[in-house]
Amino acid sequence: MRLPRGFRDFPPEIEIVRQRVISSIEEVFRRYGFEPMETSSIELWETIKGKYGQEAESKLLFVFPDFLSKEWLSLRYDLTAPLARYVASHPELPLPFKRYEIGRVWRHEEPQRGRYREFWQCDADIVGSSYPEADAEIINLIDDAISQFGFEITIRLSDRRILSSILSKMGIDHVQVYRAVDKLDKIGWDGVSRELRDQGLKDEEIERIKEIISMGKIEDVERVGGDEVREVTRNLLEIIDLVKNKNKVVFDLSLVRGLDYYTGPIYEVVLKDQRIGSVAGGGRYDNLIKMYGGRDIPATGASIGVERLIEVGFETGIFKKESTLTQAYLISISEKNRDYCWDLCKKLRDEGIRTAVDLMRRDQRSQREHARKIGVRFLIFIGEKEEKEGMLTVVDSLTGERIYLKVEDAITEMKRRLSRSMKI
Amino acid sequence: MRLPRGFRDFPPEIEIVRQRVISSIEEVFRRYGFEPMETSSIELWETIKGKYGQEAESKLLFVFPDFLSKEWLSLRYDLTAPLARYVASHPELPLPFKRYEIGRVWRHEEPQRGRYREFWQCDADIVGSSYPEADAEIINLIDDAISQFGFEITIRLSDRRILSSILSKMGIDHVQVYRAVDKLDKIGWDGVSRELRDQGLKDEEIERIKEIISMGKIEDVERVGGDEVREVTRNLLEIIDLVKNKNKVVFDLSLVRGLDYYTGPIYEVVLKDQRIGSVAGGGRYDNLIKMYGGRDIPATGASIGVERLIEVGFETGIFKKESTLTQAYLISISEKNRDYCWDLCKKLRDEGIRTAVDLMRRDQRSQREHARKIGVRFLIFIGEKEEKEGMLTVVDSLTGERIYLKVEDAITEMKRRLSRSMKI
Repeated sequence: MRLPRGFRDFPPEIEIVRQRVISSIEEVFRRYGFEPMETSSIELWETIKGKYGQEAESKLLFVFPDFLSKEWLSLRYDLTAPLARYVASHPELPLPFKRYEIGRVWRHEEPQRGRYREFWQCDADIVGSSYPEADAEIINLIDDAISQFGFEITIRLSDRRILSSILSKMGIDHVQVYRAVDKLDKIGWDGVSRELRDQGLKDEEIERIKEIISMGKIEDVERVGGDEVREVTRNLLEIIDLVKNKNKVVFDLSLVRGLDYYTGPIYEVVLKDQRIGSVAGGGRYDNLIKMYGGRDIPATGASIGVERLIEVGFETGIFKKESTLTQAYLISISEKNRDYCWDLCKKLRDEGIRTAVDLMRRDQRSQREHARKIGVRFLIFIGEKEEKEGMLTVVDSLTGERIYLKVEDAITEMKRRLSRSMKI
Repeated sequence: MRLPRGFRDFPPEIEIVRQRVISSIEEVFRRYGFEPMETSSIELWETIKGKYGQEAESKLLFVFPDFLSKEWLSLRYDLTAPLARYVASHPELPLPFKRYEIGRVWRHEEPQRGRYREFWQCDADIVGSSYPEADAEIINLIDDAISQFGFEITIRLSDRRILSSILSKMGIDHVQVYRAVDKLDKIGWDGVSRELRDQGLKDEEIERIKEIISMGKIEDVERVGGDEVREVTRNLLEIIDLVKNKNKVVFDLSLVRGLDYYTGPIYEVVLKDQRIGSVAGGGRYDNLIKMYGGRDIPATGASIGVERLIEVGFETGIFKKESTLTQAYLISISEKNRDYCWDLCKKLRDEGIRTAVDLMRRDQRSQREHARKIGVRFLIFIGEKEEKEGMLTVVDSLTGERIYLKVEDAITEMKRRLSRSMKI
């Protein structure tokens, strides 16, 4: 039986790695002083409407009627809008409110490599601060969260107000240009030029836009943009000043990001030497909370697309599939030892060792085969001798050693070996 | 802005506790040798159809059309059917397959105390074993998972085949009786009697059903049910024999459980002295995988309703709200110390201390107030003196002590204090 297009299951060998990656990211969020939160997966459509922009709302949102209440519901499209809604309806929150949320979101996109209709986001946001400190903290946070695994990253940084200011001086509507430039990665400059030409822009205007967007230095932008952009570029320089790894940051005006709600600095993290698009992105959205009927509260934050990260991690060997979390398997040599095995199993579990025991009344050989197939580390054999003498025969399949020790000593020894290679 | 009825957000003070409870449950699952898995939250409606029973499928499932593909989709109703679908389409899985999944499910129920339209289940299932060992392992697992918090529980145990066998001997359709008896907790015996009478049962039949259902001893049931039920009751006794805490188990024929897919032993966990219904339940469903087009594979498992547990935990004081995970807050005494604070903050975070620093350019007093409002344990004051001498002034708000130490020593001391009271 198949799943709907764009939906997936994660079997244990993937899920074990996923959980490890997610909890490592989570631990970085916590270290930065962010608090966990979870929001409803379903919103009223009227609440969502007008927040993400025309394309998202006409095509990409899962919207459906509640047959009983006759209200239109929507699966959440990201974790930012639910946060803004929450903040808007909780005026008592002490600010800054630093929260993280890790969870599923749904987008009705055409499924392709690294893109699904259901996927996970790891979001961290700071609500209440309009200062560059907040943006810089988020950038440092996503750098730490992603780099901890060994990925080499580049952080593309921009601010939408620069382009819109320069374009408006040229008498050009910036929304159209954004939409075209947003596709630069996919369709290249030729494609962007064609699209702008279709929108009625003249060749020399397009050439000029290309020139501006290609400027890699903030000073050049200030020269072209004049006083109107200076406040914005000064703010960007203040952010960069607080970023730990300045060498990872590139100023890039071609970055516009798809969502409508951004109002200031925006950034995206791309993996070096990987053509998978961005693995994280974010920016400032100072108006969104007000749009939800809240006070005028500034906010900034970012989202890590953990699945792309994991996908690239598997491809490059940074992550490896793992078949099991189970550490020990108790094998009864004959039927007679079964009850004793069951008791021992309880003991090992109480000691914190993740232990499995035969549940199929299989013979010794089949139990061993099953344990090996799963990939359990310690195979513990229980026969008449072991039972009578209170001993355990333990085979450490990592080292190939066979140990014969008193039950208590064997448990201590297994724990010692596990603690040396413990992961989760 | 409101949420749709039956949907909720979990703010930090609740979510911190939720995460702790869920990861404690998860750790028990792992100790028992279960592997993690995650399944799609959305299924094709045609896949779901016919698995849960008429009431669930006509009213309780969220079903909606995919506007593009024109297919009907459904939000998952539980974590069991997705598992069965997965197993059916993966014939290569080594058996027994022991997996756990913790995640959201959706039911279109009338919201009431402890009942929401979106809630979390913590499921553990054993696929492949038809033996009582598997059922007993699940019962021990949920006992451990719930009792670890200090809840006192009763495990109600039954097997649907007993009642259906006895009823069919009386010439009565068991499905009708199940449906009525399933409401016993809510409507009492009077209500159940009325419902059965409406279905055309005679008074003496109803009286007899009540008698049978009230039998609390397996021996009595065997006497009434005869040879037809003996295999089933023997199996129950074998299960009980392997249950760690036999004193928690009560045999209870009035337990029928709502879902259609159960085929054998069923059980439910209720909290003593609490009138909140069951907090966990499960049973054997030997036909479900075949219904998904898979081989004929037996399966058994249970689900913990973690939110009810948390709700009762808060009410009884077992759990307490916690406002923050953040451990330290760096307070710059004057503007001049801000850069130094920012550097120190990085240092503390690198040392694994969850640290916040001012992001609002506030004065000393406002920083301190904010840190106290959040409830951060260590308030670290940085002034000219501290900066020049490389010292930290730390106030431990748990003990009220004020410490003045070299940066490195202060870090060591904070870590020492934290490790004594560390939770997550």
